[in-house]
Amino acid sequence: MKQPRTKKDLILKGEDYFLPQLSVDCVIFGFHEGVLKVLLIRLAPLPQWGLVGGFILKEENPDAAAHRILKERTGLDEIFLQFLQVFGNPDRTKTDTWPVLIGKLGVQAGTNNWLLKRFVSLGYYALVDFHEVTPGTDGSFESCVWFDIHEIPALLFDHREILDQALETLQLHLNYHPVGYNLLPVSFTMPELQRLYETILDKKLDRRNFQRKILSFGILRRLKEKRKGVAHKAPYLYSFDLRKYNKALKEGLGGGW
Amino acid sequence: MKQPRTKKDLILKGEDYFLPQLSVDCVIFGFHEGVLKVLLIRLAPLPQWGLVGGFILKEENPDAAAHRILKERTGLDEIFLQFLQVFGNPDRTKTDTWPVLIGKLGVQAGTNNWLLKRFVSLGYYALVDFHEVTPGTDGSFESCVWFDIHEIPALLFDHREILDQALETLQLHLNYHPVGYNLLPVSFTMPELQRLYETILDKKLDRRNFQRKILSFGILRRLKEKRKGVAHKAPYLYSFDLRKYNKALKEGLGGGW
Repeated sequence: MKQPRTKKDLILKGEDYFLPQLSVDCVIFGFHEGVLKVLLIRLAPLPQWGLVGGFILKEENPDAAAHRILKERTGLDEIFLQFLQVFGNPDRTKTDTWPVLIGKLGVQAGTNNWLLKRFVSLGYYALVDFHEVTPGTDGSFESCVWFDIHEIPALLFDHREILDQALETLQLHLNYHPVGYNLLPVSFTMPELQRLYETILDKKLDRRNFQRKILSFGILRRLKEKRKGVAHKAPYLYSFDLRKYNKALKEGLGGGW
Repeated sequence: MKQPRTKKDLILKGEDYFLPQLSVDCVIFGFHEGVLKVLLIRLAPLPQWGLVGGFILKEENPDAAAHRILKERTGLDEIFLQFLQVFGNPDRTKTDTWPVLIGKLGVQAGTNNWLLKRFVSLGYYALVDFHEVTPGTDGSFESCVWFDIHEIPALLFDHREILDQALETLQLHLNYHPVGYNLLPVSFTMPELQRLYETILDKKLDRRNFQRKILSFGILRRLKEKRKGVAHKAPYLYSFDLRKYNKALKEGLGGGW
């Protein structure tokens, strides 16, 4: 499917390539050793950061568009994106962001330009290990940077609301589904797993309650060997029972009926 | 917000009123005493039935559009609609449905007519008591009927896929959330609750396992009185503990962290 070759082409002829008034925004969370980050990009002539977003080609599936946009704008490939929700407030993009950007790029666009219309956005999110996933950039137009979840700058449009909604969804996800595979080493200690939960939930959890509850789901296997190189009491090592983990991903932690 | 006054106006000038290439489809499930139904409508000149669908006004929120469409086309008000998913296959509406309907209505529409373009649809679903909810109809254009889930006729476009997806989502919903308030009398027996689950899941459940599991969620209160007018052993009556029920609706049946 053909795409605009230049920014000017995108601004002036976007409707020749893309579905009108529909966009995609991706919230990419990154975890590593007790730190939660979010991937943000910056359209270089503008001061603000925003989520990784873009448009859907005329004959493209929205899910495919989300993956293409993520790859084109950040270099990230093969990310497990989950649908978040539809962001459809009619005023959500009625800011001066597009006029300012268009002006800074020196393009003569009319007041009826397609980018100035209302956009409904399809939100997606993902959780990756930010040590495993290194964003690229095309160098000329935008920056792509991991921001600590506690140090998010002002964002474009309603992107802060989308981010907050994605974080709430991710936190609620922990009530229903297992999490941690691909974010922890193959074998890990109970405190390492607890720290993952605490980092996403942004709160301390009681050690005993956490252990009791997480073990009750039956998704963990306690290994024979213990963590080495620890001075006093060597902690047990665990790994995920992938069969049960995947079943719980599908049916929920409480199992099916 | 202004709306088309006639079908001809909608066909010829739809883009003056609605967001282009974006639609809404609602799957309304109805339950009553062991029967699960789905609400379908028929555009009278066409033989096929379809889901309750429509378009989003230019300055309307998609959720508000779903409620408006449901009210306009079925008379149903104050239904708790949940977002289902986005249906965005580029070929999903490339059938002869619109050309045939437009022809039967005697409207002269060009091959570039807005209805003939690709539409991305936002799917919603709801579960109501079909004895409490009586659909209306405008009489001239469409019929609106409850169909038993096992007797669904051929449907328009990809509506069968949307319906199947909604049913699967509803069934999966039972793994995570409580269900039954507004579908059962205030007090009910364990077999009545089990039948609700069996009807949605379309399978028999073991009586003891069901009782053990449903009681373990702590959302039920066993009442002092028993069901009267039963010959032999009067069964216990239960009601939902609404505080815990609502908490489980929000946090999931396993509770939060």
